[in-house]
Parts: sequence; C-alpha cells; structure tokens
Amino acid sequence: MGKEKEKKQELIKNPKGTRDWAGEDVDLLEDILAQISRVFRRHGGKKLDTPVFEREEVLKGKYGEDSKLIYDLKDQGGELLSLRYDLTVPFARWLAMNANIKNYKRFAISKVYRRDQPAIAKGRMREFYQCDIDFAGASDPMIADSEVIAIIVEVFESLEWSGRYTIKLNDRRILDGLFEVCGVPEEKIRMISSAVDKLDKSPWDEVKKEMVETKGLDEAVADKIQTYVTRKGGKDLLEELQKDEALMNNAKAKKGIDEMEILMDYLSAWGALDKISFDLSLARGLDYYTGIIYEVVTEGSAPVIANGSDVAQEVQKKGKKEKKVLDEDEDRSNDPSVGIGSVAAGGRYDHLVERFRSNADLPCVGVSFGVDRIFSITKARIAKGETFSYISSNAPDVYVMAFGGGGFDGMAKQRIEVTKVLLDAGLKVEFTYKKKPKPQVQFKNAEQAGSPFAVILGEDEQAKGEVRVKEMGLPEGHPEKEGVLVKITDLAAEVTRRVEMKKLTTNTGRIAVS
Amino acid sequence: MGKEKEKKQELIKNPKGTRDWAGEDVDLLEDILAQISRVFRRHGGKKLDTPVFEREEVLKGKYGEDSKLIYDLKDQGGELLSLRYDLTVPFARWLAMNANIKNYKRFAISKVYRRDQPAIAKGRMREFYQCDIDFAGASDPMIADSEVIAIIVEVFESLEWSGRYTIKLNDRRILDGLFEVCGVPEEKIRMISSAVDKLDKSPWDEVKKEMVETKGLDEAVADKIQTYVTRKGGKDLLEELQKDEALMNNAKAKKGIDEMEILMDYLSAWGALDKISFDLSLARGLDYYTGIIYEVVTEGSAPVIANGSDVAQEVQKKGKKEKKVLDEDEDRSNDPSVGIGSVAAGGRYDHLVERFRSNADLPCVGVSFGVDRIFSITKARIAKGETFSYISSNAPDVYVMAFGGGGFDGMAKQRIEVTKVLLDAGLKVEFTYKKKPKPQVQFKNAEQAGSPFAVILGEDEQAKGEVRVKEMGLPEGHPEKEGVLVKITDLAAEVTRRVEMKKLTTNTGRIAVS
Repeated sequence: MGKEKEKKQELIKNPKGTRDWAGEDVDLLEDILAQISRVFRRHGGKKLDTPVFEREEVLKGKYGEDSKLIYDLKDQGGELLSLRYDLTVPFARWLAMNANIKNYKRFAISKVYRRDQPAIAKGRMREFYQCDIDFAGASDPMIADSEVIAIIVEVFESLEWSGRYTIKLNDRRILDGLFEVCGVPEEKIRMISSAVDKLDKSPWDEVKKEMVETKGLDEAVADKIQTYVTRKGGKDLLEELQKDEALMNNAKAKKGIDEMEILMDYLSAWGALDKISFDLSLARGLDYYTGIIYEVVTEGSAPVIANGSDVAQEVQKKGKKEKKVLDEDEDRSNDPSVGIGSVAAGGRYDHLVERFRSNADLPCVGVSFGVDRIFSITKARIAKGETFSYISSNAPDVYVMAFGGGGFDGMAKQRIEVTKVLLDAGLKVEFTYKKKPKPQVQFKNAEQAGSPFAVILGEDEQAKGEVRVKEMGLPEGHPEKEGVLVKITDLAAEVTRRVEMKKLTTNTGRIAVS
Repeated sequence: MGKEKEKKQELIKNPKGTRDWAGEDVDLLEDILAQISRVFRRHGGKKLDTPVFEREEVLKGKYGEDSKLIYDLKDQGGELLSLRYDLTVPFARWLAMNANIKNYKRFAISKVYRRDQPAIAKGRMREFYQCDIDFAGASDPMIADSEVIAIIVEVFESLEWSGRYTIKLNDRRILDGLFEVCGVPEEKIRMISSAVDKLDKSPWDEVKKEMVETKGLDEAVADKIQTYVTRKGGKDLLEELQKDEALMNNAKAKKGIDEMEILMDYLSAWGALDKISFDLSLARGLDYYTGIIYEVVTEGSAPVIANGSDVAQEVQKKGKKEKKVLDEDEDRSNDPSVGIGSVAAGGRYDHLVERFRSNADLPCVGVSFGVDRIFSITKARIAKGETFSYISSNAPDVYVMAFGGGGFDGMAKQRIEVTKVLLDAGLKVEFTYKKKPKPQVQFKNAEQAGSPFAVILGEDEQAKGEVRVKEMGLPEGHPEKEGVLVKITDLAAEVTRRVEMKKLTTNTGRIAVS
C-alpha cells in the first residue's frame, strides 16, 4: 500500500471519543429524548437552546480542576471561544443576561464537550448528550425541589424502568453539619466530603485510609464519621437523626434535617417516597451545591458504546455484527467489577447566577439525565428481548412495486402516482429508483427496508383501475399469500386500515417489526 | 462605574453571530423542524447525527474560497479539529467510512458554523440550523431527483406556504453545454457560470459588464449568452430548447435537456410541476454539482433575527418589546432593497464521496432547508395575524391553586396531590412554589403562564371531596365565572374534557392562546 493510499484511509474517521448516531441507535435515542422532553413539558419546562460555544470567560473558573477538559477554539481573530462543558453554566449566563427574569423552568437537550481520555466501555465520550431541567427562582423550602424529584420518577417510569432505579438523596447542609459535629476542621470539610463520595465504589477501610493517611484527618474523627456515612434508609433514618442531639444542636445539620422532613412529606404526595434512599454517604463532586443533592443509580449491564464505525456498520449488517457487540455487553453485565455510573444527578445551587451578576438572587434546583447511559442500558435490554411501548417503528408502512411481462415499461410514473396517493394519506412509502426494476429486486428492497406491506401495480390490473395489496412474509398456503385486489380509488383507505390493524396486532417496538 | 464592574458586565454575552433560542421562538422553531422531519420520515429518511467537529483534513479543500470561514479548534494535543461547515461533507465522510452502504436516505437537522461577518438583518449568523435530506446510491435518471423535489413541495405545503414559493430549476449540463455553444472558452466556464448566478440580484447589463470587463469575455459571446439565460418557464421553455439545433448538437446540453423532459414527466406524477420554474439563469455557487440544481425562492418579509438579549427579553415582556421587533420586520418587508435569499437549495452531486474513498461510486442528490429564514418569515406572518395549524401551545393546561381564610395552611401537600393526579392524566400542570401563596399571586402566575384553566382547592370543598374548576378570563356575569364544583374522583376526566373542548373551539396556534 502506497503512502498516498494510507493517507486517504486515515482521513475517513470520526474524531476520537465521538460517535455518529445512525440507524436504529439514533431512532432509539430520539424515542428516549422524546419521552423525557414530554415529561419536562408537562411540568411547565420551556426549552432553551444556547450556542455550542461560549466566550472563554464564561466557562473560566467554573469547573475547578476539570477546567483542563474544556475545548478551546483557535484564536482566529475576534472573541476567544470554548465549547460548552455542560448545560448549567450557559443557563446561568442566559439568566444573568436577562435581569427581568425572576423565575424560569428551563429544559435543554444538547451535546456537551469534554477533552477527557475517552473510555468507551465506561460510556465516557468527548461529545455526549445531556438532558437537563432546572427551576430558577424563589421557592418555599423543598416545594420546587420535590417537583424535580417527581420529574426524575416520572422520567424513569415513562421510560419503563419501574423497579430498576433508586434515587440516592442527601443534603449538603446535613453533610457539612455532620462533619462539624464529628470534628472535621473547617478547611478540610470539602476534601473529606470528596473522600466520602467514593463510598459507592470503595469500601470504608479504603476511604478511611485516604482520610487519615492522605488527608491527615484524626483517626478518631474518621471513626465517628463512619457511624454516620454508612447509614441509609428512609423516614426511619430521618427519625434516628432527629433524635441525635449532637447533630440537632448543629445549626446547619438541623436546617437540613428539618427540610428533609418537609421534603419527604411532599414526596409522599408526589407518590415518590418509595423511590428514594436517604443516603448519608452521597456527597457529589461539584462545589456549587447548597442544599439537597441526588443521584440516580440503577442495576443492569455496563454501558457499551460502539465506536462510530461499528455503529454505522450495524445499520447495514445487522445480525452477526450486532449480536457480537451485544454479547460483549451481556458479558460485562455479569462482571461485578464493571460499575455503571449514575444515570441522572443534580441538586440545589442557590448562588451560581450571582457568579455572573451580583445580587442576581436566583436560587436554582435541577437535574441532568445521562442520556447516553440510559440509551446503552435500554439497548441492552432490547437485545435481551424486552419491548418498550414508546419505541416507534421507522420502517416504511408500504413499498410500491410494479410487475409485468415482455415489453413492460416498469410503470415508473404510475408507481410515483400511487406513492403520492399513499404519502398524502400520511403513510411512510418507498419504491425502487429503477425505471424497470425486476420483481426480485423490488421484493428484496422492501424486505430490507422492513416494509410490512407491498402495493403491486400491473398493466392488466391498471386497465381495470385496480392494484394488488400484499402483506409481506405471509406463510405458504395463507389465503392472502398472493395479495388482494383493491380499487385504486379505495387504495389509501385500505392500506391505512391494514397498516393500523397490523400495528395493533404486532408486538410493539421497532426491533420486533424489522 | 469601576473597572471591575465593567468587566463583569462584559462577561455576560453570547458570542457574536449566535443567538439563544428561547420562549416562543424556540417552540415555533421546534414545530417547524417537526413538520420537516415528518415529511423526511414519510419518504424513508433515516436520521444521521454526526459530531459537531470533524478532523481538520475532512473539511480541508471542500469549500474553495469559503474555507477561510471554517472554525478551527485550538491545538490542545491530539487530533486537529474544525467545526462542521455544513451537513453534506460529514455525510460524505460517514458514507466513505461505511463501504458496505450502497444506498441510503439520510436526513440531518443540526447547527453549522461559519466564521463570517454576521449580518443579522440578512439572516447571516455564525451558528445556524440546517435541515438536509440526501439520497445516496444509484437511481435511473431523475427518479430520485424527482422525489427530492416532491419533498421540497411537501415541506412547504406542510408548513402552509402554499402559493408563496417557487422552485427554480436548472441543470449544470444544460448550462455548461449552453456556454460551450455560445463560445465560452473551456477555462472560463466556471467563472462565467458564477457571473450568471448573480442575475437574481443584478440586472443583465451589470452581469454582462462583469463578464466582458472583469472576466475578459468576448462581447458577442456575452450577447449570445443573454439570449439564453434571461429565459424561464416550464414545459414551453423545454420545447423551445428541444427545437434549438445548436444546443441539441452539444452532447452535454442534449443530455441535460433529455433528462429535464423525463424529470418534468415525473414531476407531473408527483403533482409538483406547477411549483417549478425552469430558469436558465440559475447556476448555484458550489462546484460539486453534476446535474440538476434548484433553489427555492419566496416573497415575504426580510428575515430579522433578534440578538440573544432581545429574544430572551421577549419571553418575559411580550407585547411592547415584541411589537417593536416585529414592526421593524414589517418595515423591512416593504423595502424592496432588502432581498431575502433562498429558503432551500440543492442538487445532484455524483462524485463527492469519491473525494474520501476512490471508486466509492455513490451518486447523491439532496436538498438543504434554511430553517432560520423559514422561521423568520413564519414569525413575521404570525405577527400579521396569520395562524398555522401545526403550531402547538406550550402553555400549561391547568394551574392548581388553593384559597382559604385565617389560619389557612396553604394546602401545599394537597396541591401537589392534585397536580400529580392531573399530570398522570397527561395534562400540563403548574402551581406556585409558595407554602401559603395569596390568591392574587396564584392568579397572576396562572395568567402569566397562559393557563386556560384553574383548579382551586379550599378546606370546605376538600372536606366534601370536591374542588373547583374554573376557566380563566370568563367575562363578568358568565354563569361559570366562579367555576364549578367537581368531585375529586372525577377531576382528571373533567379537566381533560374541558381542555380538549377548549382546544377545539379556540383559534389554533400558541400565539392566539397565550
């Protein structure tokens, strides 16, 4: 292979850590996003769609150590720009620009960018989707907060994840108060909090080691912390804490605990109380949280995101290729060492907008859904044979063909006319772009497209104002195996009726149909 | 104002040439995009969603002089990347990566990036939406091409632009043949073609001047070109050309004219023939077209895209502010000097994929819709009082309130319970995030949100298992002015019934409702 050829090969790649969404994957992704945005809209969410890049200063100093992961644009003259890192900071920038806005329920569905080392198996990409809803503006304690948690529940119920997820819940004020009560020095609170956050992946002994050896915490203090942060539950845990005098004497902890009681009361009204786990080990990484925090965890397979090339190939060679990818998926799901991260997370952050406009006074609470992970887990469940009622088929409803003997001209114009009639009835229609296509070619194309019906034109039938409607794949001996003749004037109604009937009687889901 | 303060003010801007899509604008945009993608899907379109950036080499050498408008990312180590300039090159890159794909109907809806001097009034932004469908793979002459034109017609009909648009149509082969026949030297054909392309903005004399004086064309040749390129029509023009012996003796022109006849025949089958204007002055800028080319023009107001700040303000202070923006819009629409560009354009390009993979043999034909312009014109029509059946209301269906006398606790928990019942029925529901909100505050919030109904809880009604359902804004003296009492068990059904009834009897369109 010459140098020249090699170069050409190298060109045709998508960038590292990105993927092309195509075929059944992009359809499933769209169905998931549609479910989520329907929930957001029901709760009064209004969409905000900001530019993919922001002025460099807008992002600067917002992400701590992770700022190194921000993609900058080249200085080509004019403003210095960076790709957005999340959807929260652009929302805060937009709120700051619009001082007249006193409250807003905004949702956003967009890709975000992190110049991280990609880890496909862990679902860590450089370009990935986020799907956020945030309520900005005043709320009496825990009312807006409880609605965000109700939205999390509705999203996962509408995605048919019932019984498969838990919302881990804590409050920064309880956590900070608890550290004070245990005797953590003020300046070590944030780093001890980070250590505690690792308890979902590491055993206590390791976390303690980090606290004592790396972070220089007194061992007795660490042991005291253990008595708290290894506890989780529901109302029972709340009642225990309310009896804990030391904790209730700490102003921060008391405030957090009092409001947790209010929150649980509201959550019972939302029907969401049984979905949460009050978990004192939940700390969350980001600095800006000021109250309630939460993270949604699920059991299931590890997310596997194929690279762009694989995904695209799946579109054309389903079957073997796809099977392979999904088998790997299954293998990993049985491997307890592969932890899947959270599928949604968020909390209250009351002072972020003030970073852009002093005295903005726009307290916020919100949640971000990790759509790529939700997609991967849903895809793995489909591969195991599960069906989902919200997944729509994108195969054509009907394929238009024409057959004829010697001297037959292919009836291209008539195929177009019939296609147009069926399209106007709202059906999805395809036909073969050949002037005189062979019957086998047309049938093969119809099958590959996954069309459940064919409309077949012929010169004899045409003369009588009729066409043949045939259901694809009927067994030999079926009375309608060869199709039925339909008056051209009745065609749209007849095909619509059959397509709807078929949808009612077939298993739901694109995968089942195709 | 101190230096510090000034700096903070400067921070809160969106980047030049971009906008934040918010409020009614983003809802209208989404409704337009939904209509377009519905048409794409009916015709078998499959979505492709590629990364926002590509490897630098993928874009290099694809856009001629306009390559200088490409945004590059900073070299932070690893691959050199650039933001996509259009959706066509990423599609070709994807096709080249997937050698097994022999044909594909792909659509894409995404933002693209051009580091151009922004011109808001002309709708020229640095970040803007494109909405493309392209058919890759073999087609007998003009079959796939005719379906793309049928899609253009369906899109504009579904957007309710009937009678307001014309599809200008030409063929690169006719144009090139015609230049040869007129005696344009081979090496001047592309530059003379570019000059002809300006005939939609400039009179013939100016274009001639450019040809003769700037491009050194013989004046007699220019005069001969004039006899062709000032002609437009339909089948009549085609028949004239078919009688033109000089033209029909040129192989390229003959091929183009023969296929134009086939195309018109198919277009009559699609019911699209009366929407086109065969226009010999249409040349199109891009080099890569190899056959049919088209551009959709419309009459109407010039596109006005407000800057991010204005748009956001509209959300909160509708009325005066919006009125102002739209009046300006109207002014411009009466100014004939403000030309609006095309709202869609495309053509056949048979050799682009080969730029990435030799011998790829993937002929393509497609169209790109200029969604920002379509949005601006639609918005201006709405401001003039037009309604569109596809525009959906995003206001809440119902607002949940509670009223009570002294010692009243605000019934926050009960409001949540009722909200949940209504949400579960699929309704859009909001309530006030106050523990004890005043009646006036709740009514004001409901009105601002544009809710047509209120559900009002009270302690007395609660005791009897009842709530009050009230239609907002009924006139004094209306028998239901104070609302009607409904059993809590019947509430979801009763509100659903009223909301649906209201939708049937109200003018369509979000604007009319809010």
